[in-house]
Amino acid sequence: MAFECLLRFINDRGETCYGNVPRGVDIASIVGKEVDALDGSPQAGFTSVNKQSVVKEVLCPIAEVHIFQCIGLNYRQHAKEAKATIAPYPVVFSKPPDARAGPYDDVHVHRDAQSKLDYEGELTVIIGKDCKDVNEDDALNHVLGYAVGNDISARNFQAKEVSGGQFGYAKSFDRFAPIGPVIVSPLVIKDPQNLEYTTKVNGELRQKTNTSDMIWSVRQIIAHLSRGTTLRAGSAIMTGTPSGVALFMEGGKGFLKHGDVVEIEVEEIGAIKNRIVFDA
Amino acid sequence: MAFECLLRFINDRGETCYGNVPRGVDIASIVGKEVDALDGSPQAGFTSVNKQSVVKEVLCPIAEVHIFQCIGLNYRQHAKEAKATIAPYPVVFSKPPDARAGPYDDVHVHRDAQSKLDYEGELTVIIGKDCKDVNEDDALNHVLGYAVGNDISARNFQAKEVSGGQFGYAKSFDRFAPIGPVIVSPLVIKDPQNLEYTTKVNGELRQKTNTSDMIWSVRQIIAHLSRGTTLRAGSAIMTGTPSGVALFMEGGKGFLKHGDVVEIEVEEIGAIKNRIVFDA
Repeated sequence: MAFECLLRFINDRGETCYGNVPRGVDIASIVGKEVDALDGSPQAGFTSVNKQSVVKEVLCPIAEVHIFQCIGLNYRQHAKEAKATIAPYPVVFSKPPDARAGPYDDVHVHRDAQSKLDYEGELTVIIGKDCKDVNEDDALNHVLGYAVGNDISARNFQAKEVSGGQFGYAKSFDRFAPIGPVIVSPLVIKDPQNLEYTTKVNGELRQKTNTSDMIWSVRQIIAHLSRGTTLRAGSAIMTGTPSGVALFMEGGKGFLKHGDVVEIEVEEIGAIKNRIVFDA
Repeated sequence: MAFECLLRFINDRGETCYGNVPRGVDIASIVGKEVDALDGSPQAGFTSVNKQSVVKEVLCPIAEVHIFQCIGLNYRQHAKEAKATIAPYPVVFSKPPDARAGPYDDVHVHRDAQSKLDYEGELTVIIGKDCKDVNEDDALNHVLGYAVGNDISARNFQAKEVSGGQFGYAKSFDRFAPIGPVIVSPLVIKDPQNLEYTTKVNGELRQKTNTSDMIWSVRQIIAHLSRGTTLRAGSAIMTGTPSGVALFMEGGKGFLKHGDVVEIEVEEIGAIKNRIVFDA
């Protein structure tokens, strides 16, 4: 297998590289250590170059996202807190490529998007091969791997009376989709529907779930998104968030403030940890 | 000025080229004629190469769309037929790059998207320079030009009880955004808020309006879309459709059938004309 956990990083010569990290290594403490260098791209695939490379800085594991396809209300518990009816298909909206951010990047927030800022911890699927009209049985064969994602949301722009009910705009600001810290191969994560995960804000637990609570599985989502539509390599699918978002906390007291640190951890992948910076 | 009307085409040597067509020339009858060849790209700009080139086939005027940002319910008359409240900001949703189609391409429709297929004639804005936090006064300086667009919609996937209220999925199938036939420079169209346009199905008039009926102007839309968000060169903004879509015709009798031809014409730009082909 070309990689277990795909790391993208700057090495000690200042070059941007890909590397393979063995399963179980803590990415949060990988700076200064050596990893196996890889050659390739998410589109072309990766091969080992039999060389070690020292990690200086961890980057977003994917250099360019084609588009973010996001699923709304995909956890039974979250649909319940939102008092939402479950639709007969996955609920889909998009974020543009520039929403991408790295696993430890600061997220700068435009002044108009600060009043009701929320987190959404999500299992994120990176597509590895262009595909169309994929059936559920074959769906996971098009997955490059899995990452942790945060579908950051400016709820003041998401309210129905402001957005006309469309979710995308509130979630499309630059850097509103941190992903990482690595992309874990489907050869490591054989079943994406049995992963524990948590979201913490400044260390306080806000979301805790297992991907087994998803209404639509990763297989079903890929089949639905590729129906009559080319799903490109390099697309990122954010599979929806569980209960526990700030929007539904009493009196909106859970909304993110300047300096808050959001940490989302998914079993078998690791954690992303982003500081919120309110721009003047 | 580098171009008045930007044409992308295959020439008599089989090469894909850009060319400049003087204002007022009918693109529908340009095959076999000579145009001024241009060098460049929407991102880098265009310059004349002082050479004529014979048009063999007209292509989509933009080789790759970064993303389609689309505005919903942006005409007073359409908002009225949809019985929609007017939101305090433009209503935004997206289509992926593969929704792009040429001005005369057949639009192949997946079998699951055929039952309530609709047209939406729209003025389409192509962004020419990356921009962010643009104010309304400066907005049109970032426009490469204007094209005609059709925001094709599979209404069976758009109904609230099916989509959870999100518009994008129903409109994101491959080739569900034909644009063209050229991109007309803002030096030619100085005021995008005073253009007559019509949509016809098999020659029958369905939509007729003037862009002066828009709720949100092109300037306001660009300012809103670029708020805290990088609006990339090569992005296409579909500015919303007027009244007259099939969805609101009595008994749904206006929905598109196999073989129907949809023609949308905008003053100063020309017409796109696409045949609907239902895939088995």
